[in-house]
Amino acid sequence: MEFAHTALSLIIVLAAAKVLGEVAERLGQPAVLGELIGGILIGPHVMGLVHDGEIIRFLAEVGAVILLFEVGLESDLEEFLRVGVSALAVAVVGVVLPMGMGYGVAIALGLDKINPFVPLFIGATLAATSVGITARVLSDIRQINSKEARIILGAAVIDDVLGLIVLATVVGIVGTGYLELGSVVKTASLAIGFLAGAILIGIPLAPHLFQVVRRMRSRGTLIVGALIFCLFLAWAAEQLRLAAIVGAFAAGLVLAKTEDRSHISTKVRPLADVFVPIFFVWLGFAVVPSVFNPFAPGGTRTLLTVAVLLLVAVIGKVLAGYAARGREINRLAIGIGMLPRGEVGLIFASVGLRMNIIDAGLYAAVVAIVLLTTVIAPPLLKLVMSRMPIPEEQSVS
Amino acid sequence: MEFAHTALSLIIVLAAAKVLGEVAERLGQPAVLGELIGGILIGPHVMGLVHDGEIIRFLAEVGAVILLFEVGLESDLEEFLRVGVSALAVAVVGVVLPMGMGYGVAIALGLDKINPFVPLFIGATLAATSVGITARVLSDIRQINSKEARIILGAAVIDDVLGLIVLATVVGIVGTGYLELGSVVKTASLAIGFLAGAILIGIPLAPHLFQVVRRMRSRGTLIVGALIFCLFLAWAAEQLRLAAIVGAFAAGLVLAKTEDRSHISTKVRPLADVFVPIFFVWLGFAVVPSVFNPFAPGGTRTLLTVAVLLLVAVIGKVLAGYAARGREINRLAIGIGMLPRGEVGLIFASVGLRMNIIDAGLYAAVVAIVLLTTVIAPPLLKLVMSRMPIPEEQSVS
Repeated sequence: MEFAHTALSLIIVLAAAKVLGEVAERLGQPAVLGELIGGILIGPHVMGLVHDGEIIRFLAEVGAVILLFEVGLESDLEEFLRVGVSALAVAVVGVVLPMGMGYGVAIALGLDKINPFVPLFIGATLAATSVGITARVLSDIRQINSKEARIILGAAVIDDVLGLIVLATVVGIVGTGYLELGSVVKTASLAIGFLAGAILIGIPLAPHLFQVVRRMRSRGTLIVGALIFCLFLAWAAEQLRLAAIVGAFAAGLVLAKTEDRSHISTKVRPLADVFVPIFFVWLGFAVVPSVFNPFAPGGTRTLLTVAVLLLVAVIGKVLAGYAARGREINRLAIGIGMLPRGEVGLIFASVGLRMNIIDAGLYAAVVAIVLLTTVIAPPLLKLVMSRMPIPEEQSVS
Repeated sequence: MEFAHTALSLIIVLAAAKVLGEVAERLGQPAVLGELIGGILIGPHVMGLVHDGEIIRFLAEVGAVILLFEVGLESDLEEFLRVGVSALAVAVVGVVLPMGMGYGVAIALGLDKINPFVPLFIGATLAATSVGITARVLSDIRQINSKEARIILGAAVIDDVLGLIVLATVVGIVGTGYLELGSVVKTASLAIGFLAGAILIGIPLAPHLFQVVRRMRSRGTLIVGALIFCLFLAWAAEQLRLAAIVGAFAAGLVLAKTEDRSHISTKVRPLADVFVPIFFVWLGFAVVPSVFNPFAPGGTRTLLTVAVLLLVAVIGKVLAGYAARGREINRLAIGIGMLPRGEVGLIFASVGLRMNIIDAGLYAAVVAIVLLTTVIAPPLLKLVMSRMPIPEEQSVS
């Protein structure tokens, strides 16, 4: 009966994703917004139809991995490097500004009285960017091949790496009581080395690997081979304390340069169709809507904290968009594309709670900010990009 | 790091399936044989590379469900009903003969001294048939559309239902100490009613459901819709204490009659390519090779029990094949196709162990019989079907 129980959860998750996703699309919004709201509705804090078990969490994590793998697979590495300087500038400004502003505002709000490390932690959370949601929105509105999308995705990946360095550093400071330069340098080197290594070794190696796969006679070797490659780089990234999605993105970038690219892409699509919505519904599970109730004890203070930090989160990233270089670029769209904190922000928040740096109320506020930035980005991005021409090279959905 | 741990297990499972499956095919054997051996090798009793966790088990069960869904999707219901009488005759003889012979042999071997219910339980285990492995072999050797395949698959499904009635009955006898006719009639009616109901209600209803799905604009609605339909019938079957795979097979039969059949089939293929090998590798995990060691204590007795019961298991099902009616039918192939006890036999064995009816040694023997029948069927089936013409209507692999 254990199978039936999990199968029913999966049915509810997939049905909620499709029904709410369709409603969102009919209202002119991206499907991902409906999937998130579907997750909030069926999740433990509203209807309680589905509980966040070990299996659903794993399927959601595979969804995030396949999503980034698909994004990498549809990316053009040369084009990606061409916007590299802009992406780096946007990412660095997008980490430094929200972190600095978040730190200052947290002190102004007196949050350092809860714990002296709170301002540092708030700043770090506001610096994170989740590429997943933005990538999905860009794909939904057929702008995934635009120059702005390249800069956003490039900056978000760099941001992920910078974010993990920041997290490792903050955790280091909290643990030892002082800033340890060695671990900062080590984490940074590992992250940069992993991405460069995966791409520089992967691109000449992958065609040989997939020549063997092509020669195999049994059924489904191409999709299984591609999935093994993707999971292996995701696993390797986690071994180096990077996010699994960084490895999956690198795997996609590498396989995009092989001659099997379009075959792999066709075979990965049904897997992505099934797994990716599970990820977004699962992200919705963590939302506690009662945090917005001003009549509940502490509700007003939580709302104020949320409002001020949300403002910092938005201003910091929007200004970062203007660090992009080049002509005829929609800099506002880039800044808005960097808004969602998504799963990266949620990881930050949960680490802070586990280390007893932030309390349950502040945790709820941080989660709310993560989710609000995630929820407002898709409609705003759609709004500012709606009058842009659709790039020719787009994928047919 | 939990994700990385499970991801690594999944990488090892998929890699073992593909490498050993390929070796099997190169040696002229079906890939499924290599996948089972791969599972034995990497499993807890040999190399111990992968432990049988909750997540891998769920993925394996989804694999079995998708496998039977795909078999149903590629089946022609009219053709299936045309061989219905033969399938019913083969199934009934294939349950009655091994059960009766198994019961007698178990008493002759003195196994009723361990527990008076042991002969009944041994008989029930020998009556089971696993359609999964046979379906895969028939697909591998391109005989999935032959008349023999229809009879085997039809008989195996009826056998599954009969097997579950037998299991429910045996469990009932053990629990109450006497045979309760009411529960036998109830279980039988439910099983027959479910399949008939799913097909009779499903076929007129499905086109309307999928007309709605086709009108949806968001990405991947067809594959997600089909998967929800399949999981829902699998869940419903389990609610009625039938196997989930019976529901999945019914879902496939129903969707095969819609105009989306070929689209769904194309989209399901990559999912089956990934999930089905996980199921066969997972079946291999349960094999304890040391049971065959004649120098270990009790080894000779276990080997003798295995040999005698294996003979009964083979003779019972081979004779059942000759109950098939019609001209120019390979009756030996039908009997051999019914040999694998697979996951159904394993479920019987584990229930017997949990109810303290059989001891650990007898459990190992039963598992060995289940696996030996499963391992010998593919090469034998390939041998006796190798000179048969390939049916025209076959699916391209």
